[in-house]
Amino acid sequence: MIILLKNQADQKQVDNLSSWLKSMGFDIHMSVGASQTIMGLIGDTSRLDIDVIKSLEIVENVQRVQEPYKNANRKFHAQDTVVSVNDEVKIGGGHFEIIAGPCSVETEEQIVYVAQRVKAAGAKLLRGGAFKPRTSPYAFQGLHEEGIRLLLLAKKETGLPIVTEIMDVNHLPLFEDVDVIQVGARNMQNFELLKELGQIRKPILLKRGLANTIQEWLMSAEYIMAGGNEQVILCERGIRTFETATRNTLDLAAVPVLRRLTHLPVIVDPSHATGYAHLVKPMALAATVAGADGLMIEVHNDPPHALSDGAQSLTPDAFDDVAKSVFAVRPYACR
Amino acid sequence: MIILLKNQADQKQVDNLSSWLKSMGFDIHMSVGASQTIMGLIGDTSRLDIDVIKSLEIVENVQRVQEPYKNANRKFHAQDTVVSVNDEVKIGGGHFEIIAGPCSVETEEQIVYVAQRVKAAGAKLLRGGAFKPRTSPYAFQGLHEEGIRLLLLAKKETGLPIVTEIMDVNHLPLFEDVDVIQVGARNMQNFELLKELGQIRKPILLKRGLANTIQEWLMSAEYIMAGGNEQVILCERGIRTFETATRNTLDLAAVPVLRRLTHLPVIVDPSHATGYAHLVKPMALAATVAGADGLMIEVHNDPPHALSDGAQSLTPDAFDDVAKSVFAVRPYACR
Amino acid sequence: MIILLKNQADQKQVDNLSSWLKSMGFDIHMSVGASQTIMGLIGDTSRLDIDVIKSLEIVENVQRVQEPYKNANRKFHAQDTVVSVNDEVKIGGGHFEIIAGPCSVETEEQIVYVAQRVKAAGAKLLRGGAFKPRTSPYAFQGLHEEGIRLLLLAKKETGLPIVTEIMDVNHLPLFEDVDVIQVGARNMQNFELLKELGQIRKPILLKRGLANTIQEWLMSAEYIMAGGNEQVILCERGIRTFETATRNTLDLAAVPVLRRLTHLPVIVDPSHATGYAHLVKPMALAATVAGADGLMIEVHNDPPHALSDGAQSLTPDAFDDVAKSVFAVRPYACR
Amino acid sequence: MIILLKNQADQKQVDNLSSWLKSMGFDIHMSVGASQTIMGLIGDTSRLDIDVIKSLEIVENVQRVQEPYKNANRKFHAQDTVVSVNDEVKIGGGHFEIIAGPCSVETEEQIVYVAQRVKAAGAKLLRGGAFKPRTSPYAFQGLHEEGIRLLLLAKKETGLPIVTEIMDVNHLPLFEDVDVIQVGARNMQNFELLKELGQIRKPILLKRGLANTIQEWLMSAEYIMAGGNEQVILCERGIRTFETATRNTLDLAAVPVLRRLTHLPVIVDPSHATGYAHLVKPMALAATVAGADGLMIEVHNDPPHALSDGAQSLTPDAFDDVAKSVFAVRPYACR
Repeated sequence: MIILLKNQADQKQVDNLSSWLKSMGFDIHMSVGASQTIMGLIGDTSRLDIDVIKSLEIVENVQRVQEPYKNANRKFHAQDTVVSVNDEVKIGGGHFEIIAGPCSVETEEQIVYVAQRVKAAGAKLLRGGAFKPRTSPYAFQGLHEEGIRLLLLAKKETGLPIVTEIMDVNHLPLFEDVDVIQVGARNMQNFELLKELGQIRKPILLKRGLANTIQEWLMSAEYIMAGGNEQVILCERGIRTFETATRNTLDLAAVPVLRRLTHLPVIVDPSHATGYAHLVKPMALAATVAGADGLMIEVHNDPPHALSDGAQSLTPDAFDDVAKSVFAVRPYACR
Repeated sequence: MIILLKNQADQKQVDNLSSWLKSMGFDIHMSVGASQTIMGLIGDTSRLDIDVIKSLEIVENVQRVQEPYKNANRKFHAQDTVVSVNDEVKIGGGHFEIIAGPCSVETEEQIVYVAQRVKAAGAKLLRGGAFKPRTSPYAFQGLHEEGIRLLLLAKKETGLPIVTEIMDVNHLPLFEDVDVIQVGARNMQNFELLKELGQIRKPILLKRGLANTIQEWLMSAEYIMAGGNEQVILCERGIRTFETATRNTLDLAAVPVLRRLTHLPVIVDPSHATGYAHLVKPMALAATVAGADGLMIEVHNDPPHALSDGAQSLTPDAFDDVAKSVFAVRPYACR
Repeated sequence: MIILLKNQADQKQVDNLSSWLKSMGFDIHMSVGASQTIMGLIGDTSRLDIDVIKSLEIVENVQRVQEPYKNANRKFHAQDTVVSVNDEVKIGGGHFEIIAGPCSVETEEQIVYVAQRVKAAGAKLLRGGAFKPRTSPYAFQGLHEEGIRLLLLAKKETGLPIVTEIMDVNHLPLFEDVDVIQVGARNMQNFELLKELGQIRKPILLKRGLANTIQEWLMSAEYIMAGGNEQVILCERGIRTFETATRNTLDLAAVPVLRRLTHLPVIVDPSHATGYAHLVKPMALAATVAGADGLMIEVHNDPPHALSDGAQSLTPDAFDDVAKSVFAVRPYACR
Repeated sequence: MIILLKNQADQKQVDNLSSWLKSMGFDIHMSVGASQTIMGLIGDTSRLDIDVIKSLEIVENVQRVQEPYKNANRKFHAQDTVVSVNDEVKIGGGHFEIIAGPCSVETEEQIVYVAQRVKAAGAKLLRGGAFKPRTSPYAFQGLHEEGIRLLLLAKKETGLPIVTEIMDVNHLPLFEDVDVIQVGARNMQNFELLKELGQIRKPILLKRGLANTIQEWLMSAEYIMAGGNEQVILCERGIRTFETATRNTLDLAAVPVLRRLTHLPVIVDPSHATGYAHLVKPMALAATVAGADGLMIEVHNDPPHALSDGAQSLTPDAFDDVAKSVFAVRPYACR
């Protein structure tokens, strides 16, 4: 960390700051110029609140040299992390897969049918919501325990591992047979939940919050990894901007940006990112060539009658076409 | 809800839509124009997913006529809600109060001293974080149970009711003697937590999420109220924009906007909204005359050494000045 | 346009509104329901200010049925517009081309060399700034007239038509031999400039403003087209959000969104959108498969010493690789 | 400027960078630490492109120490600038005034009547648009030359100096008798226009662009001041965010932020910032106590029939009330 002092900084105040920082275990490297004095801090500054330093009277500005995340940082872990689901399906490190399924699990018939169709089209994981975060308390909230039961039934029928969202630490026992646990955008900074998920040994699919920076997202992955669970998949699903023509704005550049910053796999959800079925295919292809390690796509047997997010779901036939196009373009992906 | 059909809508499809909506209990009012057919839905459309309707092939556009929140809606509850804390302190309906205290509870000495000072300056509630949502897993996370114990001690010393943040449903038993439970910005859409808080009978201070619209915020209040807990205080604390000169962008117009939409009290937190101590006073005064029902202000005995958010904390002396100015300007507030 | 009246709307006021609208040449279609009265306006409402109607006391809400742009609207012009540059190079309607060159024209040697290299790599148009919009008055502002002279020289050497930005109506005479005139993001709503460009008969490359919606962008195209110049190319170059890891946030979904709304060609500038050379390739590939009609890419012989935007420029060698990859993936593009 | 070099920076490359910077006239102060080498640049770095330096292979990060604006910078000009209009009306340095009038000048009767009313209520300057920047080419664009004639007539009748917006450098001769020239939000970065306005000696009211940072805004003021015209008034009028309940989001904290950064006066336009008449009063009061040097408020004799921005205009009666409240609260303003 580099601390830039004000020109008129009083020597006694400088000494005080220096002593305080040393007392916290940092080595200080002072560089006194004609017009500017700079303090370089050596040590683990991830514990230090940059805003506190900035607020000091004698400080002009502060700059972090190191990123505040470590476990997720590619600098300390050059090789790609490959997330392995039941030793069957791999994501990351050159492994690219599609996760598909309905927004919400509704009936046995629905989830089994969709599972069979997406499997036939090449998807390797089944998604489906049992606990649904809905803006309105009056909207359909998911089938809960019954939803997970139906997902497991579809898994039994098709062999596809399942991905489903957790909304509360207390529901964790219900997720025992779930293969990948999803943390939704609204819970990306539910730190208590993240800590708990750090204690288990199961892949976590961590969606980006709709107003969170890439760095904050990595810090949330760090919460999980700090607990010892290193199986984290990042999922870009659009951020909130002033544009209203789409539900969110897909920040596709996040994929190559993350490739440099972290070794964790990054997938893209074009369904939530755009909110419209007709935008899923172009954004799925774009994400693939931009170097994503996978896609998460909503597929529903009957989108107009879906109990949630019907507008953005593909029919199984439309998904066939998208998957085929994605696999065709995959060899051209950027790494 | 008004549904605008496409010009070329097939009569059979229109009939199907109409039947489906009727089966869901709505009355339909059709208006067939030369160039446009409009369906008016009468009934409780808060349960209906607007995006599903929009996604139908024959639909051009859909517009809600009613707001999707009811309990929080001023239309159905013209009179201001007055939130009463222990029958001692009132907020809303003409009652204006200041909540003040440190970002984090650190020591007994600190919290008691700050409590005494803010009380002397005119604050009627004491704030202090025991559970701290921190972006980094390596940053100070609060004293937890011990923090609440110290807050209660400060309450005993000063008589000030206490406000503190909850981060996990499972911590609820620890909050038994807490007077007002705060839901932080990052948990504004932690719906499972909101549902639980709807089951208790204690005032809830609901902060706005940093990328949430005013309507989403009211829907989160609705989650609490739908459970039967009508004691909700809304707290504007800045939204996230492209501007980097301040920590967040204080959306002060939200105060008069909410005044029309809801009967719930609205307070403003100028400390988190701006992130800098020197901006707290001008924004506190501005919020007061804009018609806020109260303020929430960070005060620390020694801001440069605060364990969190030191940059935005006022010293007790600075708070004296702010409180005095706020009370002086309060008679000129807009209603 | 659909006007929703308030429940308690006074009949006399309704009649007044109705008369006023009729006096402006609209046909009114009234639909009186039990709980809601709706007025449908038939006629050209693009001239009507939606905010004025909304502000009327008896009006609950207003909704446009028609988009407020006509010349640019695909509804009235189903076939793709193909912009033809000197009857040599075509963009749109299945024609895909790359525009490449340095941010600023610096020297004859530089521009001729870059032109030769980008031509060899497959680019069909040469870009280069002669007038540079710079945030700081102290930064390099371009070579102006001399810059255009050098561009024309490079054109003569290579045969590549040239694209360069105009910043002031008064400079128009200098652009006589320029093949495509660019309007930069900061001038997207410089309406006086747009009007003038509507009077000439030369392709206009209209960049999206950094905080403008897709609809506003089309309205700016409409300004040019309303003057009779229908040769408009839209260029997505990133919007401004809270994310700071990239210079802007590339809104790639704008490409398929625009495909539905307009018949005009849409190209993407991954250099300005991201601000970093290493992000240009993944975003160029992504834009291509998402269905863009072309790309605009910054190439500089010596990026570290470029007088502007060096950080985002590719070397000629890096551009060779990008162009090759783009052409390889182009057959898989979404339409 | 502080340049942080990468750990593995090659000595030859460091020397090259150093020589290059020296050749540009900078003094270099090297500070070689165990783990980090830092270069301090002494000299006028406002001419240096920070992004170019950042893009160099051996550079880890760069930080500006000095703000890139000088004329507008309070550091070099501690005393408040007082803008004087015709030696009659003063803004800044403790002088607070209200500018009021209709969005567009429509008729002689209208502008004279509104001028008389706002004067009676205490406004000291009359605003009115003759050239109107409208999103749609089909919307009312203002009366142009005739509009200015009518404004001058109202000035003659009431003695109020006039403020009106310029949209094109070529219209400058028409503004000879205009007292204050306004640059609208969409032209905040129309640099050619700013340069021309730097050549005249008349106060310029510079509105903030809807997606521009405070620093960019000051850089635009710098464009005017670099030409020698130091009479610049900054006007905050809302920025663009995801919130749709208001037209824009008023960034009121910009007022105290600017107070520290610049000596220029700062006023607030609550009408454009919010877009709704009922929000003007609370935001006008808020801006006043936050320390603004003035307000700009839209007033129309007949808002529902205004040719532009009727929704946000106050009636003269409503303005009487706002002005009275503003003057009452003004003594409590923060400085």
